[in-house]
Amino acid sequence: MPQLNADLAGFSRDIGMHNLAPLWERTRRMQPCTPCEPALWRYADTRPLLARATSLITTRDAERRVLVLENPALRGSFQITQSLFAGLQIILPGEIAPSHRHTPNALRFIIEGEGAYTAVDGERTPMAPGDFVVTPNWTWHDHGNLGTAPVVWLDGLDTPFAQLFGAVFRENHPQESQPVTRAAGDAAARYGANLLPLDYHAGHTHGRSPLLRYPYARTRESLEQLAKSAAPHPVHGVKPRYVNPATGGHAFPTMAAFMQWLPRGFDGRGYRCTDGAVYCVVEGRGAIHVGDERLEFAAHDCFVIPPWRAHRFTAHADCDCVLFSFSDRWEQESLGFWRETPD
Amino acid sequence: MPQLNADLAGFSRDIGMHNLAPLWERTRRMQPCTPCEPALWRYADTRPLLARATSLITTRDAERRVLVLENPALRGSFQITQSLFAGLQIILPGEIAPSHRHTPNALRFIIEGEGAYTAVDGERTPMAPGDFVVTPNWTWHDHGNLGTAPVVWLDGLDTPFAQLFGAVFRENHPQESQPVTRAAGDAAARYGANLLPLDYHAGHTHGRSPLLRYPYARTRESLEQLAKSAAPHPVHGVKPRYVNPATGGHAFPTMAAFMQWLPRGFDGRGYRCTDGAVYCVVEGRGAIHVGDERLEFAAHDCFVIPPWRAHRFTAHADCDCVLFSFSDRWEQESLGFWRETPD
Amino acid sequence: MPQLNADLAGFSRDIGMHNLAPLWERTRRMQPCTPCEPALWRYADTRPLLARATSLITTRDAERRVLVLENPALRGSFQITQSLFAGLQIILPGEIAPSHRHTPNALRFIIEGEGAYTAVDGERTPMAPGDFVVTPNWTWHDHGNLGTAPVVWLDGLDTPFAQLFGAVFRENHPQESQPVTRAAGDAAARYGANLLPLDYHAGHTHGRSPLLRYPYARTRESLEQLAKSAAPHPVHGVKPRYVNPATGGHAFPTMAAFMQWLPRGFDGRGYRCTDGAVYCVVEGRGAIHVGDERLEFAAHDCFVIPPWRAHRFTAHADCDCVLFSFSDRWEQESLGFWRETPD
Amino acid sequence: MPQLNADLAGFSRDIGMHNLAPLWERTRRMQPCTPCEPALWRYADTRPLLARATSLITTRDAERRVLVLENPALRGSFQITQSLFAGLQIILPGEIAPSHRHTPNALRFIIEGEGAYTAVDGERTPMAPGDFVVTPNWTWHDHGNLGTAPVVWLDGLDTPFAQLFGAVFRENHPQESQPVTRAAGDAAARYGANLLPLDYHAGHTHGRSPLLRYPYARTRESLEQLAKSAAPHPVHGVKPRYVNPATGGHAFPTMAAFMQWLPRGFDGRGYRCTDGAVYCVVEGRGAIHVGDERLEFAAHDCFVIPPWRAHRFTAHADCDCVLFSFSDRWEQESLGFWRETPD
Repeated sequence: MPQLNADLAGFSRDIGMHNLAPLWERTRRMQPCTPCEPALWRYADTRPLLARATSLITTRDAERRVLVLENPALRGSFQITQSLFAGLQIILPGEIAPSHRHTPNALRFIIEGEGAYTAVDGERTPMAPGDFVVTPNWTWHDHGNLGTAPVVWLDGLDTPFAQLFGAVFRENHPQESQPVTRAAGDAAARYGANLLPLDYHAGHTHGRSPLLRYPYARTRESLEQLAKSAAPHPVHGVKPRYVNPATGGHAFPTMAAFMQWLPRGFDGRGYRCTDGAVYCVVEGRGAIHVGDERLEFAAHDCFVIPPWRAHRFTAHADCDCVLFSFSDRWEQESLGFWRETPD
Repeated sequence: MPQLNADLAGFSRDIGMHNLAPLWERTRRMQPCTPCEPALWRYADTRPLLARATSLITTRDAERRVLVLENPALRGSFQITQSLFAGLQIILPGEIAPSHRHTPNALRFIIEGEGAYTAVDGERTPMAPGDFVVTPNWTWHDHGNLGTAPVVWLDGLDTPFAQLFGAVFRENHPQESQPVTRAAGDAAARYGANLLPLDYHAGHTHGRSPLLRYPYARTRESLEQLAKSAAPHPVHGVKPRYVNPATGGHAFPTMAAFMQWLPRGFDGRGYRCTDGAVYCVVEGRGAIHVGDERLEFAAHDCFVIPPWRAHRFTAHADCDCVLFSFSDRWEQESLGFWRETPD
Repeated sequence: MPQLNADLAGFSRDIGMHNLAPLWERTRRMQPCTPCEPALWRYADTRPLLARATSLITTRDAERRVLVLENPALRGSFQITQSLFAGLQIILPGEIAPSHRHTPNALRFIIEGEGAYTAVDGERTPMAPGDFVVTPNWTWHDHGNLGTAPVVWLDGLDTPFAQLFGAVFRENHPQESQPVTRAAGDAAARYGANLLPLDYHAGHTHGRSPLLRYPYARTRESLEQLAKSAAPHPVHGVKPRYVNPATGGHAFPTMAAFMQWLPRGFDGRGYRCTDGAVYCVVEGRGAIHVGDERLEFAAHDCFVIPPWRAHRFTAHADCDCVLFSFSDRWEQESLGFWRETPD
Repeated sequence: MPQLNADLAGFSRDIGMHNLAPLWERTRRMQPCTPCEPALWRYADTRPLLARATSLITTRDAERRVLVLENPALRGSFQITQSLFAGLQIILPGEIAPSHRHTPNALRFIIEGEGAYTAVDGERTPMAPGDFVVTPNWTWHDHGNLGTAPVVWLDGLDTPFAQLFGAVFRENHPQESQPVTRAAGDAAARYGANLLPLDYHAGHTHGRSPLLRYPYARTRESLEQLAKSAAPHPVHGVKPRYVNPATGGHAFPTMAAFMQWLPRGFDGRGYRCTDGAVYCVVEGRGAIHVGDERLEFAAHDCFVIPPWRAHRFTAHADCDCVLFSFSDRWEQESLGFWRETPD
């Protein structure tokens, strides 16, 4: 940046009145940077707070009883990274989170409890721990708990993209619960069995996965098989991505979601990539090393790794780890912004 | 066509010497037509002939012990339609069909017997009745029967395309059986569970499905669910297509494959489409009505419906029918040639 | 192929009655081969025959006054390669080739004469020597000559594909000339200027180019610039492909078209590829060497190179050569069949 | 939003310590909104300020002598909308804007002056008024003015996306001007003439246009032809989009660019869409009506229309208008966020 003399300073003031700013005064040159910081939310801390929330506010009053995971460096923004929203939602037996739709895409990753469902497109999808459930852009959705215990899941949304675009839209459904028009399991049979309906055209779907639910039983079976049949990747262990079965793309046009297996004792290599990622621990114990920080994690903990921050994974010696994660990698890749490097 | 006078006739002779022909003498205007005819091969007839073949020639001598299903109107061509090859292959316990590769894509649909495998890309895929197995263009493949009974399957190839292109290539593998380098089930875990490896790029695969096998158990479960959750299509019943999980396209760049459920008593509407299709009956009994012909079918029978030939399906009153089929529809669709119409 | 004994011979006879054939008796193993042969049509020979045709039959009687370029090895087939049709069409001043449409895609490459047009989608596209004009699948088209001299062009069609599919359809337009609904130059302005209409969706076009005409003036200007700015390719010289501006694909879903510049004295390397190609010489003199054959060519000559046949180009020492060509390469590439190799 | 009682307020404080926030306290429900406001920059105001800048700072000191067009509602952000950067750049005869590269994509729209160039990929592209020039993501680029008068252009970048992703990277080239390795006009001949090199693969380019420059002469000729051959769109007049000739997509993976012709006296219909757009007036005079505001524009003025803000165009009775514009529409469309409606 040039030495600023009095004339330049005066000039800057003058042009300011015309809604103009001098590029040469930008405080820093372009460089990869983000305000957001790594952070971990222990389930041991968040679970009791979720319980307390249930005694203070109903799902009906809250519309969605969600504790937002806010990046410590982005307080007040409702953001966990600059491009992602994450929150922990709890719903009690008998409660209903009323039906609405919005332009941000939403994912659910089930942490605890049986018996809840997410209704999308007239189908009620049961949710069990470890399941990955998608609620694409502008689809009516409501949640209910038909079970006998509270159900907790991680919500992930791409709200910051919709905000960046000025394209946040939202509507309430006339009914609290949308009518059930499709049998449970219909989407799984239609799209999840390596088959597609004769007349299905992915071209009209903007890359949204028609498969509402990726059941953990099947995902885990696949991870175990892969862990047996090949050596783990030095950085990632075994890490497949969830697929839109109608395109081979990711589960959402914006967000990519992943499941990751770290064999017991895994001591991962350092790595950085431009997509900041939100993790939820499914099984096992381990640590994520970010710079000098070492964040110990256990089942149900959530953590965030900022973009372009060097990090590496280790798994406890006596248990395999399973980690769910999501990020904006898909969008970065398709736009040509995504980078990775060993570190 | 114009009245041909002597001068024109002489002209035609003269230009013939220059490898020229008069377009106006083409015997017929463009119109949809095909030399091929509908035909049905009863398993009651073909199975004993397959057995007799096993006593006359070994798989090693035959390289592939296949009885080619030849369209009655295309005898000598080894074609069941102008664009497709179909054959019945039988392999005895202990036999090996040696490893080779070729540019035509090949599919297998298993008709009878347990214990056989197809090895592709270093993985041995077990084959059970009703399974759909793909051998993409130019992949090494060999078959073996580790069971105690003969195994029979339907082979489908797009050889006529390769011939049209003048692009038929073939190689023998140095070993009779290619080395096994991947655990059984590896491809299913990698590509079949609505997941994909992080580093998988479908762009390099020319639309070939990396999923070696579509197990019948899963396909049938899907069909049954769909048969319950929606009314059957008036022409097709319940008819999904097999999908390349990495693209959402069909199993091959040329050939589309389908599975079809006709509920008992199904009385289908008349229909015609430009793709001629080869069928193999998996379960049940019924009939295909083509023009005035009525071809009764039972389990394991194979039949062919020519392009643009009006036809309709009926299922016997006391059993649901399951039909496997394949055709060149995918290629016709992507090139803009495919048509269908009620009839 | 195994030694055939009496039993096997009898078996083959027996299964024949069931429309079955023994694969092991196939006369040859899979290998790249084509019946078609290289051939060249000298304009010095064909032009007088075209003239004579004009005196013997009218365009109205002939519908299209075309002399079909028939491969010497495929006489009677109306094919120049197994997958392509080519013909020379002549139209006299005042004549009209009446409006019709058909499923085969058609291209025109203008050889001689000014003042003719091709009408497609309600627009009359003027045709000048060297222009490449497309008539996509199922578009109404008619030709007329508003000039004062005969006009001659090369027709190229993918009829054999439509025949293979059993999907040859054809219709006459109620009027001899379709109504003109778009100004001349409309398609060029809409699609040819590196712009597209806001609401244009290539997805619905099956890869058909909306750009009716690729004018030679512009193509040649581009070739000359490229010939100056880079060394010629050792095999191809300077050889761009015509592009569908709405997709970046080829001009047709089936056929690829190319223009080629061989600098004077060009002495090309040997080469073979699986797509058989039809050439039309635009400018210059040279030779195509196929095996031991040496085919001398001059402006307006047409020739064919069969699939997988080794060949090389040479250009006369005193003139640059410009060659138009088309083949089924695009389809072979998209299906994964296409191969090339130095030779 | 529920009535907040003391307990809830206390709860919110408590969870705050854990980097958690109560979703039910979000101050507003999701709704389309943007902080940014419509604004217009008169060239009559900005041009003298650009001149004054030339006397105060050199291009070398400034690196890029750019006056940033800052949205009045986003002062300090260097943003004209939340997703776009725009600025006016002036370069004097003999000056060089040194070579660098960065991950944000950049476009130039030339406003005034002849003789300047942008060098990208080793080719120097001349810039004339009305030309649209692209500098894709991570390509080395430098500018120079070889003429005798100052040259002014509009810069447009997608920097906010790179910032959102945390993927802003930047590098200086070792030399002030990158070496010239390709003849001027090479990219135009290679990619701009509805031809593509045989070996060009768009798949590796992340949708970046290889065509460096869209000359105004050709664009305007196309607009005039279209204005003659069809009635103007009631909202947009004649408005094509710039195309990536290798894909049929937009000029950038993020940003779409458009050219627009409003015939004299055009009185456009009201309209709103979710992409906020930056405009630069090329020819003519008219007005943009946004809500109750009426912004009169003349040649070289720039203005911005926020996302989802109702607006309509009028053109002065005695002159046709030509407007250049760019927005993030392409990305919104591909992600499924884009909407439009009459208003």
